[in-house]
Amino acid sequence: MASSSSLTLSQAILSRSTTHPHGSSNPPPPSDHRLSLPTFSLPTFSGLKSSSLPTTASGRRLTSRRRAIRASAAVETLDKTETALVDKSVNTIRFLAIDAVEKANSGHPGLPMGCAPMGHILYDEIMRYNPKNPCWFNRDRFVLSAGHGCMLQYALLHLAGYDSVQEEDLKGFRQWGSKTPGHPENFETPGVEVTTGPLGQGIANAVGLALAERHLAARFNKPDSEIVDHYTYVILGDGCQMEGIANEACSLAGHWGLGKLIAFYDDNHISIDGDTEIAFTECVDTRFEGLGWHVIWVKNGNTGYDEIRAAIKEAKTVTDKPTLIKVTTTIGFGSPNKANSYSVHGSALGAKEVDATRKNLGWPYEPFHVPEDVKKHWSRHVPEGAALEAEWNAKFAEYEKKYKEEAAELKSIISGELPAGWEKALPTYTPESPADATRNLSQQCLNALAKVLPGFLGGSADLASSNMTLLKMFGDFQKNTPEERNLRFGVREHGMGAICNGIAHHTPGIIPYCATFFVFTDYMRAAIRISALSEAGVIYVMTHDSIGLGEDGPTHQPIEHLASFRAMPNVLMLRPADGNETAGAYKVAVLNRKRPSILALSRQKLSHLPGTSVEGVEKGGYTVSDNSSDNKPDVILMGTGSELEIASKAADELRKEGKAVRVVSFVSWELFDEQSDAYKESVLPAAVTARVSIEAGSTFGWAKHIGSKGKAIGIDRFGASAPAGKIYKEFGITAEAVIAAAKSLC
Amino acid sequence: MASSSSLTLSQAILSRSTTHPHGSSNPPPPSDHRLSLPTFSLPTFSGLKSSSLPTTASGRRLTSRRRAIRASAAVETLDKTETALVDKSVNTIRFLAIDAVEKANSGHPGLPMGCAPMGHILYDEIMRYNPKNPCWFNRDRFVLSAGHGCMLQYALLHLAGYDSVQEEDLKGFRQWGSKTPGHPENFETPGVEVTTGPLGQGIANAVGLALAERHLAARFNKPDSEIVDHYTYVILGDGCQMEGIANEACSLAGHWGLGKLIAFYDDNHISIDGDTEIAFTECVDTRFEGLGWHVIWVKNGNTGYDEIRAAIKEAKTVTDKPTLIKVTTTIGFGSPNKANSYSVHGSALGAKEVDATRKNLGWPYEPFHVPEDVKKHWSRHVPEGAALEAEWNAKFAEYEKKYKEEAAELKSIISGELPAGWEKALPTYTPESPADATRNLSQQCLNALAKVLPGFLGGSADLASSNMTLLKMFGDFQKNTPEERNLRFGVREHGMGAICNGIAHHTPGIIPYCATFFVFTDYMRAAIRISALSEAGVIYVMTHDSIGLGEDGPTHQPIEHLASFRAMPNVLMLRPADGNETAGAYKVAVLNRKRPSILALSRQKLSHLPGTSVEGVEKGGYTVSDNSSDNKPDVILMGTGSELEIASKAADELRKEGKAVRVVSFVSWELFDEQSDAYKESVLPAAVTARVSIEAGSTFGWAKHIGSKGKAIGIDRFGASAPAGKIYKEFGITAEAVIAAAKSLC
Repeated sequence: MASSSSLTLSQAILSRSTTHPHGSSNPPPPSDHRLSLPTFSLPTFSGLKSSSLPTTASGRRLTSRRRAIRASAAVETLDKTETALVDKSVNTIRFLAIDAVEKANSGHPGLPMGCAPMGHILYDEIMRYNPKNPCWFNRDRFVLSAGHGCMLQYALLHLAGYDSVQEEDLKGFRQWGSKTPGHPENFETPGVEVTTGPLGQGIANAVGLALAERHLAARFNKPDSEIVDHYTYVILGDGCQMEGIANEACSLAGHWGLGKLIAFYDDNHISIDGDTEIAFTECVDTRFEGLGWHVIWVKNGNTGYDEIRAAIKEAKTVTDKPTLIKVTTTIGFGSPNKANSYSVHGSALGAKEVDATRKNLGWPYEPFHVPEDVKKHWSRHVPEGAALEAEWNAKFAEYEKKYKEEAAELKSIISGELPAGWEKALPTYTPESPADATRNLSQQCLNALAKVLPGFLGGSADLASSNMTLLKMFGDFQKNTPEERNLRFGVREHGMGAICNGIAHHTPGIIPYCATFFVFTDYMRAAIRISALSEAGVIYVMTHDSIGLGEDGPTHQPIEHLASFRAMPNVLMLRPADGNETAGAYKVAVLNRKRPSILALSRQKLSHLPGTSVEGVEKGGYTVSDNSSDNKPDVILMGTGSELEIASKAADELRKEGKAVRVVSFVSWELFDEQSDAYKESVLPAAVTARVSIEAGSTFGWAKHIGSKGKAIGIDRFGASAPAGKIYKEFGITAEAVIAAAKSLC
Repeated sequence: MASSSSLTLSQAILSRSTTHPHGSSNPPPPSDHRLSLPTFSLPTFSGLKSSSLPTTASGRRLTSRRRAIRASAAVETLDKTETALVDKSVNTIRFLAIDAVEKANSGHPGLPMGCAPMGHILYDEIMRYNPKNPCWFNRDRFVLSAGHGCMLQYALLHLAGYDSVQEEDLKGFRQWGSKTPGHPENFETPGVEVTTGPLGQGIANAVGLALAERHLAARFNKPDSEIVDHYTYVILGDGCQMEGIANEACSLAGHWGLGKLIAFYDDNHISIDGDTEIAFTECVDTRFEGLGWHVIWVKNGNTGYDEIRAAIKEAKTVTDKPTLIKVTTTIGFGSPNKANSYSVHGSALGAKEVDATRKNLGWPYEPFHVPEDVKKHWSRHVPEGAALEAEWNAKFAEYEKKYKEEAAELKSIISGELPAGWEKALPTYTPESPADATRNLSQQCLNALAKVLPGFLGGSADLASSNMTLLKMFGDFQKNTPEERNLRFGVREHGMGAICNGIAHHTPGIIPYCATFFVFTDYMRAAIRISALSEAGVIYVMTHDSIGLGEDGPTHQPIEHLASFRAMPNVLMLRPADGNETAGAYKVAVLNRKRPSILALSRQKLSHLPGTSVEGVEKGGYTVSDNSSDNKPDVILMGTGSELEIASKAADELRKEGKAVRVVSFVSWELFDEQSDAYKESVLPAAVTARVSIEAGSTFGWAKHIGSKGKAIGIDRFGASAPAGKIYKEFGITAEAVIAAAKSLC
């Protein structure tokens, strides 16, 4: 981008002439503020008048000018009047946060008070977005990784004109049914990109957002048209920095060279337990240099607006590395008695200190008041945002004319509409198909899907050759090959999950999958929970799903994992038994764009069973074989995954002895729960209490399906190191055990 | 320690004169190796004869000499004969690993082949241990964080003379019932300190082991007697380095200045998916410098014995920082066709390549053969180890004479014997005691226990003031105050859990606790699972245990967590309802030294209920109140934690209406499961099918206790951001709901 300024970067830094020890150069206001407030000519920045902004496609030229102005803002020293309005806007943000937390008597005022300057500069000067269409594809993304400071983001969305955060929403902060929950939640508040709060998730989400942009840009941009072109900004605090997931994700961001990722590290030296000196004395700058980031230090984050602007400008010049801007701030800036202390981190200031802060910052207004000049200043973002989107739409129309095929593909990714008949690409199997591990059958599905789903991409946490997740038609997504679709996450399960959440939330039609051994979902459980909560349809390809993995032993053998995910809301836990069920699991997973799917897949070979089907999988539980009549089997045998074969073998034996046996595949409990009572009764008739379940995992939870009189065969201890067949036998996960249990019941 | 050498460190590095491109300077052996092998004078190193080693306490002088020799080894260039024997020993280790993996046709030969030199030097030249007493208190600790390479450790334990790893154990590698499972497991193999395999856990365990040493040394050492004095060594690989948990733990190790922690980073550039170039290009050295570590690079880890020795010596001189020795090695060193490739990481070499490797390294022996000279050389470790322990015992006897009180306390920590009557320190409550949050009641218990349990210490992941975990009589464990007992983990839940596992495994009488919000067990689940598997009695103090935490919203409100831990083997999941139950939970937790306990504690105030008791908690589930007779209530109401009060209120109402109601507290399902059938029938008579459970969490699993006809009141969705009372009401977690459910059943 061209700059209209002739100042150099260092000049700009040097030219920062006014500092305001308490965040404002205003004189203490007299008691009747309405009469005495200084007035400003509006709008102010660089003389750009919002009223002069066109809202049609013809605005392209002007909007480009605005871009240039924004870029130049970083090196211009605003005049005193303008700086005063920035001060006022920044203080507006601070007091919206203070007042909302005060009213809720709950929340975190400290971060918004300290980060208001960088927040103001980002949303008012730097970022490109359309408040009236928070989903505009080419918007800059912003992530508040330090999610507890969400009042910062709510205040900014409010000022910028998002419909999601009205004054009453600010007043309803943290209350039942409001759009302003206690931490940022994308599914509650349009304008919030992802769900943060659990520390470290947000920065990893941001890496995913930046990855998605880089990938799509590499695939769709043309020399004459950068149709994908946005930045990802993130604010993270000391807490995020301490979390391992942040290091994982940032190591990958450095490796991938995500130059359009710009992270602000709110370096305020305070965490909940007090000064970071008690637990966090590492040199973050050095660590990030080691991770391959460009690092800038803004020493005065409280009032050093130009420093912040210059840092952003510098960050944008570094295109082959992500940038960490360490911004030293004062938590609770402006509070005369609580600033720079942990007491301002997570509690309301209290009426007395709110008053003192109002006095200290020269803020005469009623709670939740946005001064008219601030309001007017921010009001340009609605028309500007519309113009930005219109400009992009026009650009896309041009692109579409020249690059029809690419445009169609990109459109389908943006809309999230799946290509007609995509599911026909999934392979089908017969009982005669050669026995195979479901991890291998999964790879056939992944590769089939990659051919028909333009937004399908993913990878493994350094187990691609074990998880069988490589897409054979694509290369690796790397710094110099970002158009490729195989992601190499390294041994970073937690970062992987959270990065995939970011990817999924970037654009509806991007469908990320990620993989590791099923037992290592323990490492990434917090990210999987965020997938479920934030409605990210990530596909988790989890192989080596039981003691069936054999010799690696109990540290690698999942036991309680199926149960632990069945208990988690909004997760589809799928454990397919063979080829058709694996295909069915993928069909379900792809269709569920607002619910993550976890596929538990075997390492060992399994037979393709008569009676399994995609349609059956879609119902979660279904009859695979049955020799009873009138819905009255003598016994119902239930199994999942690799144990369905064992249940089927046991049924064969029992039938030879004259028993009427039904075999039910319970591939997904959640999907079965969603079926009608009539369907459930057709599979599990209440009158039949002779029920046996078999699953190579914890029996926890099976009581629900087998009833008080049934028997659950499973493993309620840790695994062991030995060949798989041996462990199955020693642990009694055998057809013989099923037969004995069935006979004891019928 | 004094060094008997006059060489300087740099001289020692320069003096490394012999390098062996294929790991051996032996000429290729002729076909009949028994006749033609070079012979060595034995034992060789520095002329120390193992036969001259005393095994009684009088060996102190000689053992001290041996120490000095060991210290000096780092700067001495061994003569050619000695180096040849080291080569031979190193190759023995390599081939024991190769042969065991080959026989099992499963395992990871690459790491042992690459790390054999550092392994040899550690176990043969540096570490102080007693093979015949793997539990000797003052031993050096070794952790193989890259646990997949466990054949390295098994080979070393075998050579060193540990009874746990005999030749038949090596031959039974990864087989059912062997002492040599697929990853190192402390509960299977004496001599293995902790359970590794899941990457990153081991390095964090090592931080815990080093922390324990530093703490005990600070408490018990005297100017005239360093009674606690050992090093903690660890080998970690690229995989461990990528894991976030490793960064968390290493950041803390740097912060705490754990100078006696020496970590070898096996820098072999290969992970499962291939060259680390594809996913791991950060500068690890720089990152560790940022983390406050001393960093040394050994460029030739394959044959640079003196480089390794010099690095260890240098590491020991740096007493205020942990040291990372980056050792560049070749994975699968010696394999002519597979070295330096991922194919040697996790698969047997195959007969052909084993042959080629034998030829390449000049190894003429049969599989599993330990050459006599190598065997003899290592044989000194049994008498030496006995002498070391005897020396220490004598030192302790001296210490005991001078410092009776301290000696008694240290003894009780070493033995793990709890002081008589310790449990009497726990507070008791009556229904008249003021209502309080169980997190506060927990703090009373923690502080009471700290007074009577000498090995009790712990802390929180930056939530001490929310988790209420500070021990008021102690200060913070910090670099300069390591004798204190409040640990400050920062926002590093995963690292915290794994560090506590290390602390717990250091010495039986150290009882660590750690704390965060219950929902963030998701961040540390992998570490909790290792607690359970490795039998580490860590106490997890998990507060904010439900929607009752209120406004922070769904990211912070646990839902599925109780169920997810009830499904995990060997975990005690405890959710106390009031003061007496909290005290009971702590009694259980302290007594269970081989099973971790998780205490789910409320943020909100709860009444002390009539009928709750410590004894009740010990049974897991028990009747709190009952107005029925003959074990035939009309309905049984069950609850846990904060909902027991709601169940009790509902019972009061129902009784007013003439119902015979039993209220059962289900504080720990695991403990209830362990009771006799008769006891269970006395609490939950089979004949009574009218059962209602209430718990502010997932209903998953409750079917087991309420039976097919019962009703479970719970929360099978994510939470919400609002004041606690409001959410309880909106989610129907109320006495009214219990009453309605009960009435529908009886």
